[in-house]
Amino acid sequence: MKNQTVLFRSPVPVAETATIAGPKEKEGPLHAYFHYTLEDDLLKQDSHEHAEIRLHVGVLKQLLNRAKLSPQEIDCAFAGDLLDEIIGSNFAMRELDIPFFGIYNACATFGESLILGSCMIEGGFAERVTCSVTSHFATAERQYRYPLELGCQRTPLSQWTVTGAGATLLDKNATSKIKITSGTIGKVVDYGIKDANDMGCVMAPAALSTLRTHLQDTGRTVDYYDKIFTGDLGYSGSLLLQKKASETGIILHNHEDCGNLIYNRIAQNVESGGSGACCCGLVFNGYIYDQLQKGRLKKVLLMPTGALLSKTSSLQGESIPAICHAVSVEVIE
Amino acid sequence: MKNQTVLFRSPVPVAETATIAGPKEKEGPLHAYFHYTLEDDLLKQDSHEHAEIRLHVGVLKQLLNRAKLSPQEIDCAFAGDLLDEIIGSNFAMRELDIPFFGIYNACATFGESLILGSCMIEGGFAERVTCSVTSHFATAERQYRYPLELGCQRTPLSQWTVTGAGATLLDKNATSKIKITSGTIGKVVDYGIKDANDMGCVMAPAALSTLRTHLQDTGRTVDYYDKIFTGDLGYSGSLLLQKKASETGIILHNHEDCGNLIYNRIAQNVESGGSGACCCGLVFNGYIYDQLQKGRLKKVLLMPTGALLSKTSSLQGESIPAICHAVSVEVIE
Repeated sequence: MKNQTVLFRSPVPVAETATIAGPKEKEGPLHAYFHYTLEDDLLKQDSHEHAEIRLHVGVLKQLLNRAKLSPQEIDCAFAGDLLDEIIGSNFAMRELDIPFFGIYNACATFGESLILGSCMIEGGFAERVTCSVTSHFATAERQYRYPLELGCQRTPLSQWTVTGAGATLLDKNATSKIKITSGTIGKVVDYGIKDANDMGCVMAPAALSTLRTHLQDTGRTVDYYDKIFTGDLGYSGSLLLQKKASETGIILHNHEDCGNLIYNRIAQNVESGGSGACCCGLVFNGYIYDQLQKGRLKKVLLMPTGALLSKTSSLQGESIPAICHAVSVEVIE
Repeated sequence: MKNQTVLFRSPVPVAETATIAGPKEKEGPLHAYFHYTLEDDLLKQDSHEHAEIRLHVGVLKQLLNRAKLSPQEIDCAFAGDLLDEIIGSNFAMRELDIPFFGIYNACATFGESLILGSCMIEGGFAERVTCSVTSHFATAERQYRYPLELGCQRTPLSQWTVTGAGATLLDKNATSKIKITSGTIGKVVDYGIKDANDMGCVMAPAALSTLRTHLQDTGRTVDYYDKIFTGDLGYSGSLLLQKKASETGIILHNHEDCGNLIYNRIAQNVESGGSGACCCGLVFNGYIYDQLQKGRLKKVLLMPTGALLSKTSSLQGESIPAICHAVSVEVIE
């Protein structure tokens, strides 16, 4: 480990991915890249929380099917979501016979899972690891802000939590040319912002902190990457990141944000764009992985960003801490 | 990794521990083993959640002080707690300049942190890792059951959530003879129990499942260990584990439960004993580590147990899944 960055001497193959996208995500510009899409975000369950559990079970089963593996062939699973006590993951894992590590870094959880999963493989502890996340618009709104039934007005800077599930299979012995080459572990950053409807602004400083550290630790410049994808800064957060980065001399000409990519922001009426643990979960496991497979992208930095609040911390007047992890994924022939 | 168990070829030194125990824990039989005890569980804060954050910051600073290290000398921190979105850990980590992995396996979180921390070190990714957990009686009661102000009657099988913080420093280069030699990663087990006041019964099957797997994976019998400590099964859960273990031919003659050890169950009026993420956090980092240092214990299996519910899952009629991780800690001369 160099400062905050783990450099994988034997880069870890990304063997397979799986995605389930919600109805609104299906209407977005990336619809063709999702493996499975939903007509109904309740999945015939009696609550949206139960629907989110079904999403998590579904995406892991889809991943195993696609990779032609049984649960018993997976050494361990890293899983997380945004529900209190990550019940989306806990209840999913009771249906899958896999040793389980529950993780939580809010919308940066998927980045955390890729780093820890890669360490388990490169360290020689595991051969196959799954990394999975879910999020759901309806469960997130009522948990972090207000129940949808209240019909509260959305603010211009608010983002739309992605409904979906994304999963990645890391496999030491896979022949995949798409490999995880490094991971930069984020630190918690808090700039004193208290608005739970302005996540982009909360998380942009964490993204900048981790980006600068990643470039320093690896000796790379932003030009090393074909694209740098942040997780869910949305429209306003992305502008803030690019502005603040330029002030430190980093011109982010190759930056995209998964929260900007997943919806037609204006047409789909999502204010500042997408967010949620599965925003980058869908975009990475759907779109980015596809582009890496086709060779249209060869060097990618994925930077999932997370806002570490709870409803209790907000009601008690706290500001919102944030974190960002960075994972470099490259095509290595 | 053999089945569910990671065997560390270079056992990972436990270099230092730190504990902060609450007022009730201070009155219990293990009071002499805690490094710091509180008179007031509110710590002069305006909420118990804020108090829990102070506990987490405090125990990590105490750990660094005792080890004479700065935050910059720690490669990464694994931290978790029972608060929604683990805000106890998130908000603590904004005061500590350490790369952060948030984890959640309920009261089994401490076991998860020791396994992942050991993998980071043995895998060559980190030299020094902190593993920390907190729990707080007042925050846990109102989150999982009822606010204390309601004055609800406690049931005979209910357990008392430990107020405290516990932290462990794993250090590759430390001279400590106390080392982590293996870790068995738990799977999620659900026997259909729905009573959020009967955690012992919920978690005992997970403990048995992980114990059997650990013994099978390592080729050991229970006699290999001087003591096997479960995390927080309490009185009723411990009896259930022992009974069910004996039915599979395992006579748990050397079993203790941290939830039984931490209080005088009858005199302190805690019904079935202690529980909470920091129940084993206090008992391991206080009492067990001391006994290992003094050579009174030489081979210990620590088995933190966790109930993976949330108030939402209980209110929606769900049963309670559980998990247990096992970590073997041994004195190696």
